Amino acid sequence: MKRGVLIVLSGPSGVGKGTVRKALFEEPDIDFTYSISMTTRQPRNGEVDGEDYFFVNRNEFEENITAGNMLEYAEYVGNYYGTPKSFIDNTLASGHDVFLEIDVQGALQVKEKMPEGAYIFLTPPDLQALKERLVGRGTDDPEIIDRRVAAASSEIRMMSKYDYAVVNDEVQLAVQRIKDIVKVERLRVNRILPEYIAMIEELEK
Amino acid sequence: MKRGVLIVLSGPSGVGKGTVRKALFEEPDIDFTYSISMTTRQPRNGEVDGEDYFFVNRNEFEENITAGNMLEYAEYVGNYYGTPKSFIDNTLASGHDVFLEIDVQGALQVKEKMPEGAYIFLTPPDLQALKERLVGRGTDDPEIIDRRVAAASSEIRMMSKYDYAVVNDEVQLAVQRIKDIVKVERLRVNRILPEYIAMIEELEK
Repeated sequence: MKRGVLIVLSGPSGVGKGTVRKALFEEPDIDFTYSISMTTRQPRNGEVDGEDYFFVNRNEFEENITAGNMLEYAEYVGNYYGTPKSFIDNTLASGHDVFLEIDVQGALQVKEKMPEGAYIFLTPPDLQALKERLVGRGTDDPEIIDRRVAAASSEIRMMSKYDYAVVNDEVQLAVQRIKDIVKVERLRVNRILPEYIAMIEELEK
Repeated sequence: MKRGVLIVLSGPSGVGKGTVRKALFEEPDIDFTYSISMTTRQPRNGEVDGEDYFFVNRNEFEENITAGNMLEYAEYVGNYYGTPKSFIDNTLASGHDVFLEIDVQGALQVKEKMPEGAYIFLTPPDLQALKERLVGRGTDDPEIIDRRVAAASSEIRMMSKYDYAVVNDEVQLAVQRIKDIVKVERLRVNRILPEYIAMIEELEK
């Protein structure tokens, strides 16, 4: 059974990660398993455990942290949110590709524990466009916007930690680039070598 | 000017590198510059200097070696053959992709000097198929064939030094995979980062 590919889509705030992810999952020819987060917050109406989130209590979440099962986690307004390793491991081992959409801080934590993934950084076509998007979001004052732009700049510098940079100039183009990356990742020697070593050993018997 | 990508196609003897290269260059939508070798052998009828080869005398070739301009070279039946670095460097600097088809020994020499290339290892679909191809070549005795298979096995182990492995199950499929690799290589962060760093510095002024 050939191991699946872990695909991590990340990038600065406001770049459009969610939009690209949604468009990607609407493609008829992809079959990625979406990485399900674990959280201690209450399920909302219609949310299903093991589909939308793994819903656990604080005690269970902290046991997962202690056991080293959280690839990354954070606490927001009194609730834990994080990415459990076991779900990703099992899915990859069953030969399925796993897709994880995550912020820059989270992605870098995940990379430390699973460096074999394909780390994709979604970038704005240019920083001016990013600024417009950040400004366009609301009615915040210029100082707040400047601070957001500075934060985005420093996030873009984090690009150096990633394998690929995909420009989000048009959603459908970004989606196609991500599909190409996953196709080509399957050709990378570090993914293929074990299979060939086994084949050679067979022939030399 | 964005630097071109150096694409190195290599692989064990008999795997079909030349066939794949020819089919690739017949594709209407590729625009690779073929890396021209340097040699001391005499031009044959119709061969053009700077097109088929760079034809030089022994003295000139040895000056290139001394000057560190040969990415790799070898001597066959009294003549030098090799890959001059300056031609590749200039072509990449002008924004064009360079394609180099070369045996395993040569590819590994080139990689030491230009590790930023995309190193593609063409593999047989399975070693049995490779054996059939080696056998099918001529009327050599079984011992020679066994020796060739052993040599091919050890070359396949060299795959670990490459970035990508492309199976040559069907020429057109192999060609498509190589085209995908080149497309995706352009998205690799190490190729894109300098451009973004410049953009950020511009915005922060």
